[in-house]
Amino acid sequence: MTLIEIYGHGGDVETAALKYGMRAADFLDYSANINPLGPPEEVMAALKKGWKEIIRYPDPGHRAIKRRLSEHVKLEEDHILIGNGAAECMALLLMALSPQTVGTIEPGFSEYRSLALQFGAKVDSVYGRQDNGYRADVSDIAALMERVQVLFIGQPNNPNGVQYSLMDLETLARKAHLTKTKLVIDEAFIDFIPEEDRNSLAPSLEKYPEVIIIRSMTKFYAIPGLRLGYALACPDLIRFMAQKQVTWSVNGLALLAGEACLQAQAHSSYEENTISLITAERKRLTEGLRKYGFIVYPGEANYLLAEGNPPWTVAALQDAMGRRGILIRSCAMYPGLTEYAFRIAVKGTEQNIQFLETFGQIMEGAK
Amino acid sequence: MTLIEIYGHGGDVETAALKYGMRAADFLDYSANINPLGPPEEVMAALKKGWKEIIRYPDPGHRAIKRRLSEHVKLEEDHILIGNGAAECMALLLMALSPQTVGTIEPGFSEYRSLALQFGAKVDSVYGRQDNGYRADVSDIAALMERVQVLFIGQPNNPNGVQYSLMDLETLARKAHLTKTKLVIDEAFIDFIPEEDRNSLAPSLEKYPEVIIIRSMTKFYAIPGLRLGYALACPDLIRFMAQKQVTWSVNGLALLAGEACLQAQAHSSYEENTISLITAERKRLTEGLRKYGFIVYPGEANYLLAEGNPPWTVAALQDAMGRRGILIRSCAMYPGLTEYAFRIAVKGTEQNIQFLETFGQIMEGAK
Repeated sequence: MTLIEIYGHGGDVETAALKYGMRAADFLDYSANINPLGPPEEVMAALKKGWKEIIRYPDPGHRAIKRRLSEHVKLEEDHILIGNGAAECMALLLMALSPQTVGTIEPGFSEYRSLALQFGAKVDSVYGRQDNGYRADVSDIAALMERVQVLFIGQPNNPNGVQYSLMDLETLARKAHLTKTKLVIDEAFIDFIPEEDRNSLAPSLEKYPEVIIIRSMTKFYAIPGLRLGYALACPDLIRFMAQKQVTWSVNGLALLAGEACLQAQAHSSYEENTISLITAERKRLTEGLRKYGFIVYPGEANYLLAEGNPPWTVAALQDAMGRRGILIRSCAMYPGLTEYAFRIAVKGTEQNIQFLETFGQIMEGAK
Repeated sequence: MTLIEIYGHGGDVETAALKYGMRAADFLDYSANINPLGPPEEVMAALKKGWKEIIRYPDPGHRAIKRRLSEHVKLEEDHILIGNGAAECMALLLMALSPQTVGTIEPGFSEYRSLALQFGAKVDSVYGRQDNGYRADVSDIAALMERVQVLFIGQPNNPNGVQYSLMDLETLARKAHLTKTKLVIDEAFIDFIPEEDRNSLAPSLEKYPEVIIIRSMTKFYAIPGLRLGYALACPDLIRFMAQKQVTWSVNGLALLAGEACLQAQAHSSYEENTISLITAERKRLTEGLRKYGFIVYPGEANYLLAEGNPPWTVAALQDAMGRRGILIRSCAMYPGLTEYAFRIAVKGTEQNIQFLETFGQIMEGAK
C-alpha cells in the first residue's frame, strides 16, 4: 500500500482522487488542518467585492496589510515581513542566513528539514520524549543550539500539538543569544489556542534579537489556496530576508484577504467561535479514538496525533478510511514516529461524528 | 521631482496615489503592460465559479495545468515548470545554477539585474545600439557569453519591444552550447506579437539544452494580481529548478485561472482580438507622440519606448501626466537610456485617445 503523501504533506486531494477513484472535492479531508468554520464572512465579502483587482499588480511593498498587521501585533512595520505563505518566510530566512547546519526537533513539520536541505544546509536534530507528548527536553535543545546556526521550533508543534512553556522559550531565547543561533518559532497554529493559554515570545521580541516568529494566515482563516504568512523579527533581519524575496511574490487576493482577516479578528466573534468549537471537538475525537484502544496524544491545536495498534498500520487505516472518502495524514515518515502514527484535523461537529462512525465501522468490521 | 518607481517597476498605483492625492483605482495606468481587453470571459467565469476553492491547498504538483500546458506548447510535462509569476521562474533558475556572473543586455528588464544581484552573482552587460532599436549586436552578445554562466534576453525586449531574429537566436543558442552558458529567453510579452511574426526557439528546444524559455501568463491574460508564469527547458534543469521551489508557491486561483486561459486560447477569438487591437493602437500612439517631435522606437510589443526633448525630462512629463491621472513609466534608470526616456503601454482605443489628448494639452500648454 502506498501512502498519499507523495509531496510530503497532507491536503493533497488530487492524489487521493487518483488513488481512490473519487472526485477531489468529495473527500472529507482530515489530512489538512484548516479552520472548519471556513473563512470569516468579512473575507468572503472582501473577495467577492474585490477579486476583479487581479487585473492590477499586487503592491510590492505590501503597505496596506503591513499597516494593519502592525496594529494587530503591536510592533513597528519594520519588524514585519509579508510572505507567500509561511513556507516562503522560512525559505527567505534560510536564503538570508545561509546556515551550514539547521536544527530541528523531531517529530516536527517536515518543511523545516526539507527547506534546510533545499537551501544547502545540513540538518541536526533532537527528539521529543514520547512521555512528554513529544516535547524535547530543553537541555537537549540547548545542546543542539551549540551545533546549529538556525533552529526551528513549532509552537504548537506539528504533528502533536504541544506547546513549550513560556519559561522554556525564554531559556532557549537566552541560549540563542549566547550561541548566536537564530531561533525560529513557527506559530502557524497558535491562533487555535485560547489567547490566555498561548505561549508566545511575540510581545517580548525586542528583548530577543535572535528570535524570529513565523505565522500563517491561511490555516486559522481557512484560505490555504491563497498563500499568506508573515515573519516578525528585528528590523535588520527583516530587511535581509526581504532582499531575497522575489518582487510581487505575494499575490493581490492574498493581500486583500489578509486585510479582511485582520478586520474580522478585530470586530467579530469568529475567533471565539473557532476556539470553542475546536476545544469541544478535539475532546470528541480523542475519546472516539481511545475507545478502540488508540493512543491519542494530548495536544492544544486543531489537530491530533494518534497511534493505532496492529493490524492498523497507518497505511492500512489510511486506505480503509480513504476508500470511504475520508483522508487522514500518515505520520509514518516523521523521524521518531512509527508506522502506526497518524494525524487528524479537528473539524466541525457533523464531520467529526461522520469520521468517528466510519472509523468505528472499520474497527468493528475488523474484529 | 521624485519618480514613482520606488520599487523599480511600473504599475505601482499605490505610490502614485500617495504622490498625486488620487485614489489608486482612478489612474489610467500606462506604466504597466497589461492586455487592455482585460481577462478573457472564460477566466472570469472560472474564477467566479471556483474562487471558493481557496479553502483547499493548491496542488503542489500543478498537475492539471501542466497537462494542459504540455498540449499547448507541444512539449512533455517534464519540460515544464509552473512558477509564482515569471519572476519566480527566473529566481529558481538562479538558485539552481548559482552563477558567478550573469549577463544582461541593456536596456532590458531590470529584474534580470536585480535578481542576479539578489542571489549573489555579478552582472556583466552589453548595450543595444540605438540605431538598431536598442538591439545589441550578436557578436557583442556572443562575446559576453564567454564571460557569463547565465545570459538573459528579452524576446521581445522590455522596454523597447524589439525581437531578435530566429537566425540570431540560433546563433546564440549554438554559442551557448560552446561556452556552457545558460541562455534564458524571456518571452513574457511574445503572445502580443502575431503568431507568424514570433521568433521563438520553443519548437526547437530539444535541440538546444542550454536554452530556457520563460513565459508569463499574467500580462497577455490581464491577471497580474494572481501571479503565474512558466519555464520551458530540458528535464534535468527543470527538475533542478523545481527542487528550489517552495511548496505551494503557486496559489490555487492562479492555477485555476491559468487552466481557463489555456482553454480560452484554444477556443476563442480573444488572442486575435488582442493582437489586432494592439497593432492598430500602437500605430496611433506612435503617431501621436511623434507629432510633438518625440522619438518613438519601433517595437512589436504592447508597449512603446519613447524619448522626449527638453524641457520634457521624464520626471517632468511623468509629473505633468500623473497630476492629470495618467501614469507613464520612467526609463531614466535603465542603463543605456537617458533622463528623457519613458515607456507607455498600448491600451484600448478610448484610453489612448484620452492619453493623447492629455499629452497634447501638456505639450500645447508648454509652448
